[in-house]
Amino acid sequence: MPVTGAAPAHRAVFMVTDFGPCGPYIGQMHAALARTVPGLPVVDLVNDMPRFSPRPAAYLLSALAAAEPEPAVFLAVVDPGVGTARRRPVVVRTTCHAFVGPDNGLFNVLARHHPGAERAIIDWCPPYLSNSFHGRDLFAPVAARIAASLPVETTPLPWRDEELADWPADWPAVVYADGYGNLMTGLRAVGVAPSARIRAGGREIARARTFGEVPAGDAFWYGNSSGLVEIAVNGGSAAILLGLGAGDEVTVLGG
Amino acid sequence: MPVTGAAPAHRAVFMVTDFGPCGPYIGQMHAALARTVPGLPVVDLVNDMPRFSPRPAAYLLSALAAAEPEPAVFLAVVDPGVGTARRRPVVVRTTCHAFVGPDNGLFNVLARHHPGAERAIIDWCPPYLSNSFHGRDLFAPVAARIAASLPVETTPLPWRDEELADWPADWPAVVYADGYGNLMTGLRAVGVAPSARIRAGGREIARARTFGEVPAGDAFWYGNSSGLVEIAVNGGSAAILLGLGAGDEVTVLGG
Amino acid sequence: MPVTGAAPAHRAVFMVTDFGPCGPYIGQMHAALARTVPGLPVVDLVNDMPRFSPRPAAYLLSALAAAEPEPAVFLAVVDPGVGTARRRPVVVRTTCHAFVGPDNGLFNVLARHHPGAERAIIDWCPPYLSNSFHGRDLFAPVAARIAASLPVETTPLPWRDEELADWPADWPAVVYADGYGNLMTGLRAVGVAPSARIRAGGREIARARTFGEVPAGDAFWYGNSSGLVEIAVNGGSAAILLGLGAGDEVTVLGG
Repeated sequence: MPVTGAAPAHRAVFMVTDFGPCGPYIGQMHAALARTVPGLPVVDLVNDMPRFSPRPAAYLLSALAAAEPEPAVFLAVVDPGVGTARRRPVVVRTTCHAFVGPDNGLFNVLARHHPGAERAIIDWCPPYLSNSFHGRDLFAPVAARIAASLPVETTPLPWRDEELADWPADWPAVVYADGYGNLMTGLRAVGVAPSARIRAGGREIARARTFGEVPAGDAFWYGNSSGLVEIAVNGGSAAILLGLGAGDEVTVLGG
Repeated sequence: MPVTGAAPAHRAVFMVTDFGPCGPYIGQMHAALARTVPGLPVVDLVNDMPRFSPRPAAYLLSALAAAEPEPAVFLAVVDPGVGTARRRPVVVRTTCHAFVGPDNGLFNVLARHHPGAERAIIDWCPPYLSNSFHGRDLFAPVAARIAASLPVETTPLPWRDEELADWPADWPAVVYADGYGNLMTGLRAVGVAPSARIRAGGREIARARTFGEVPAGDAFWYGNSSGLVEIAVNGGSAAILLGLGAGDEVTVLGG
Repeated sequence: MPVTGAAPAHRAVFMVTDFGPCGPYIGQMHAALARTVPGLPVVDLVNDMPRFSPRPAAYLLSALAAAEPEPAVFLAVVDPGVGTARRRPVVVRTTCHAFVGPDNGLFNVLARHHPGAERAIIDWCPPYLSNSFHGRDLFAPVAARIAASLPVETTPLPWRDEELADWPADWPAVVYADGYGNLMTGLRAVGVAPSARIRAGGREIARARTFGEVPAGDAFWYGNSSGLVEIAVNGGSAAILLGLGAGDEVTVLGG
């Protein structure tokens, strides 16, 4: 008598949006995911990406994805173009992960970091598509279907060099200010010499390994837990001290 | 040999509260739900309903429920009367959904939109009932039991006409301001002519299909993804521009 | 024919952190939990503990745990010492619950309330340990393993009397201000006479059973749904009226 195989486990879906902590939109996307694939594991990875700002979000998204070792589907919606010249809905696949969202630059940094990444336009059509909430009506069901290995009709859309020309693999700028006022940058720490200093907000900032290595109130940089260069202040807020936020550029001074 | 039937799938429970994004209360309700029915799917649909304001919440709740196509149990707690003349705990059933919460008007709009909706007082008593947190001690276990098709003792409580007299099916007022400053109203878009204008905050606002159809900084209205008339500003906040929030009335000017 | 035993149910993991409602950290911890034990039930119990303040957090944690009747694992991270003289990672077990987090005082109140509580240093090492995010890399996998009854190497670390000398079982101080401005204290209500008055913010505050018993705008105290003395204002914010927040002391005046 044949052994019945266990049902294939689904990948997790990781929510990455700029919707903020309030409102019904995140909940409605969760409902759409559960409706498409009951029991699908879903994690709210980060829902306060820099609002309407695909560029910093693209750098943070690539870092967060690199920090997740198990194959997952990232449902990424940071889209300033609601109802205007909306970008095409795409799915991007690296060797490990899949990403679903609007083709507005949000996945360009992934393309830089994963030269083999494949992009495809989503041709699959949901039964109902509202005018203003593609996150719920299109991207969520597609992400759920991919996580559950259900078919999704797509058309390959190779990256063109000129699309990526303006998206360096590392971007010397703040991409996220966390609740502590720590400033994540678009620089991967592995590529910055420990002796390097970073000019930001009118100061030159040296690296420290931990908060305890610098005097209270002083700024320093370090490689954060997602592999990015992050600027912090011991006992304070780098965002306030330096007056910087997502999108503001910094300068790396060779060590 | 008889085939063992699969365990019946539970309905999802959708949380709808005014607790805000912080504090232990939402978590304690999740814990109560999981304790009552392990593995129950729960979605935080919206936890920042207008605080202590059952009237706007009632309109948003009915719209959000109408936008969910699969049978679910809405655990709805927006209750200004903590410890005062508390309203009776009720369960309301439409053909599709069930709703559990205080009988303080929160379900009156559902009754208007679903003439066959049945209301019943919850007689079921939890083993422990605190004085101040019926959401955790009473409403959550009842919602979980209904979602899992477990018995809950109730007594029918038909709607009286005079209860609903003051609750029009559509309410020309703001019922929710989202994080972008968009203003949802208690008007169902299907009943408002596209040529209609809305007077709000001293302005007359015309409909547009998308943000891109109006100049930056201008207000417009459209039918939102939950079927409500919503007022927005291209590249700005309607809440700030118009100085309006939940409960503030608007006027529909025939198109 | 032998009955196949059901898979042992896992305990739930309850998140208790000071990370706030935003940012990727809570999501990354959820991802780490799911990676360690797929399908593990996780509840965000409270993620806005007083920031960097293990003392008030310790009192709230013990109360929240006492209010949860079913065995659970509390993943508790409130840690001002990031990167400095970091406290040892520990697991604490009461007869009902387990607690995982830094040994910085966060579990001292549990030790006072549960004299038999056992503390042990976590010797188990994760495959990867970042410098700045032990919540994700160490505490989350350990909590998941304990919830799933997987082995975790530990070394007993008995409490020393002098460690607990400064941690009374009840602390007359505010330990948490909720979103309504209600002030939870470190006093268990069962130990305070109903006739007692509490001096706080320059006022003497009497007990009331419910909000409705006092005039609008007046402060009162009551035993809250987690068993703590809580100060509230009918129709207002005690935090604003009294000008108090987490860590501010109050005085119990014998009834």
